[in-house]
Amino acid sequence: MISVDEARAKILAGLAPTGIETVALANAFGRVLAAPVHARLTQPPADVSAMDGFALRAADGFLGARLRIVGEAPAGHPFGGAVGPGEAVRLFTGSFLPKGADAVLLQEDADLADGFVTVNDACAAGRHIRRAGQDFSKGEILLTAGRKISARDVGLAAAGNHPWLAVHRRPRIAILATGDEIVLPGEAVPAGGIVSSNAHALAAFVTAAGGEAIVLPIAGDSLAAIAAGADAARGADMLVTTGGASVGAHDLVQAGLAARGLELDFWKIAMRPGKPLMFGRMGDMPVLGLPGNPVSAFVCAVLFLRPAIERMSGLPGAVPLLEPAILGAAMKPNDQREDYVRATRAPDGKVMPFERQDSGMLKTLARADALIMRPPFDPAREAGETVSVLILHDL
Amino acid sequence: MISVDEARAKILAGLAPTGIETVALANAFGRVLAAPVHARLTQPPADVSAMDGFALRAADGFLGARLRIVGEAPAGHPFGGAVGPGEAVRLFTGSFLPKGADAVLLQEDADLADGFVTVNDACAAGRHIRRAGQDFSKGEILLTAGRKISARDVGLAAAGNHPWLAVHRRPRIAILATGDEIVLPGEAVPAGGIVSSNAHALAAFVTAAGGEAIVLPIAGDSLAAIAAGADAARGADMLVTTGGASVGAHDLVQAGLAARGLELDFWKIAMRPGKPLMFGRMGDMPVLGLPGNPVSAFVCAVLFLRPAIERMSGLPGAVPLLEPAILGAAMKPNDQREDYVRATRAPDGKVMPFERQDSGMLKTLARADALIMRPPFDPAREAGETVSVLILHDL
Repeated sequence: MISVDEARAKILAGLAPTGIETVALANAFGRVLAAPVHARLTQPPADVSAMDGFALRAADGFLGARLRIVGEAPAGHPFGGAVGPGEAVRLFTGSFLPKGADAVLLQEDADLADGFVTVNDACAAGRHIRRAGQDFSKGEILLTAGRKISARDVGLAAAGNHPWLAVHRRPRIAILATGDEIVLPGEAVPAGGIVSSNAHALAAFVTAAGGEAIVLPIAGDSLAAIAAGADAARGADMLVTTGGASVGAHDLVQAGLAARGLELDFWKIAMRPGKPLMFGRMGDMPVLGLPGNPVSAFVCAVLFLRPAIERMSGLPGAVPLLEPAILGAAMKPNDQREDYVRATRAPDGKVMPFERQDSGMLKTLARADALIMRPPFDPAREAGETVSVLILHDL
Repeated sequence: MISVDEARAKILAGLAPTGIETVALANAFGRVLAAPVHARLTQPPADVSAMDGFALRAADGFLGARLRIVGEAPAGHPFGGAVGPGEAVRLFTGSFLPKGADAVLLQEDADLADGFVTVNDACAAGRHIRRAGQDFSKGEILLTAGRKISARDVGLAAAGNHPWLAVHRRPRIAILATGDEIVLPGEAVPAGGIVSSNAHALAAFVTAAGGEAIVLPIAGDSLAAIAAGADAARGADMLVTTGGASVGAHDLVQAGLAARGLELDFWKIAMRPGKPLMFGRMGDMPVLGLPGNPVSAFVCAVLFLRPAIERMSGLPGAVPLLEPAILGAAMKPNDQREDYVRATRAPDGKVMPFERQDSGMLKTLARADALIMRPPFDPAREAGETVSVLILHDL
């Protein structure tokens, strides 16, 4: 058995980012940039007014001055002439500052009458003026490669005049659920059968992590069915199986994939839930074998699959973020396996482990807000102690 | 001017959840349930083994007992007979417990030879058995209406045998950017022009918040163009405009929409950035007028548009979550306006406000990790004090 950290490092070591595709800016949210985004122009392109008001020469901006309005410069329509002594030009937020002007009189500090404006508050040179390039300059890097594109980044790329962006292709994750006992949701359930929950939960998980899920048909418990599943996964960036990864006589996944050239890296991890995790390669394709147990499969997905998808997306593929939280109830000492305990989190941040942690209980998993991470041989913990938790959010 | 909380309450008060649509389970991730999801079956459907091993009668489970193996019950293939005294049936995780058996001997505690199994560790009645209904019972509510569907919820709905779910339609948000000076990204920028960044940043924002964005053509600064934009928004659940919401002579949005029956509710809020926020209705359609400034538009979107989209999605439409953070630098006293200050957040959680807070600076906005919220008349703050922050995540 190897540790969680070792296993994750082994998985990530062999993964490379996917290729590059061009997407419309309108579809770029949440994607990972494959190339830096340079500004194609300077923003603002010239000195502009930050407020509605009047452009004038600072020398004319003294209290009581009366200036002739010689024109206006609404945003998008710069004033063609220049502002001379004793003159003012009406402008608006974003208006280019006309030639000759170096100060802005705010609208609320101005009195208008008969084509003249009276200065009611002295205005200093440069105030309320956004300088050319204050936001960014042509050629400057606005967004770096490897960055996940936020809504604000979309705005910044737009402002930099980019209608298209180069991003990494979403990693295609083929999901193969195995087992004679499972049927698809909504189908008739035979005696001894259960409804497959892993494949679609994992597909949603893959979506949440930035990948593209391909749900393969369920493979029954035969070598041929599993090998056929492996064939169907061709073209994916990773094959994820669920079930059949442990040592039971009916755990045929390893054998079935071996018929298609699986080279096994490891298959046992010192963690709970989720001991029988398998990792290897079939030719170029990495293969991650998750346990069949829905809770174990999910926890392993959080710890291993999400970083893997991130790495293939062009992101670092970080270790899941743990944060401190106050424990709401005592916990017994932990054994040699790193333990991920389903827990709720109260509005005050206190975490409360569910009393029953059976890894078959999907309802408890869905109700959980967090996983409490307990290192191997963690001693008993009292209520009020600080523990490390992984917040599940929309996963 | 009204406060941020008053404004939000006014906006939310008039909003109702969208209608219901049926989506495939595979497309349900992130949607909001419009009806509770009941379990269509009991899970597990019968007492099942939690481990690989042997089913036997607890009375036979003493150290050294030797039991005849009378059959096997792989998952999906229940054993048809019963386990009698001195007998055992091979089973696997998830196998139905055969009649007569009330205990499970773990595989690792069993020695096999000549069709017999020897008990190497005494086994108690009920251990390693998952009881029928341990996860959930037929008819039970698995997921409540109004819940945003997580990846785990998809798994739970699948386990409850649901291939379809009833969810609220994604609120359709029509986005109308206005201004003679703006052009679409990638197009030629005339003198005095700038590239429109708001519409696509807001479209990504709407997506992130669970809505469906409709980006309308840019409306120039004329009453007719704005009224035409209002016409194009027909069928949307909300019209969001950017720009032209303040009092300048070229701020025509209110007047343009008035020609289509806009009834104004309010249009000034005591906040920074973002004072000229407008809210009203055109017939049935709520209209939210955001400032033209990209930073102001974004901050107003976080404070007002996201809760509005959530409310229309069937969620409560909560006040944005503020969390405490340690301030990394001193801040001056605040005036009468609630202030949202762009800041970075270090790995240790400390927040550092950007020195320049000009609301025209998109680059600073994109680099920000958080907004520091400062209430009206907040006194000066020293580095090390605790402030309230709003984490921006992927927005």
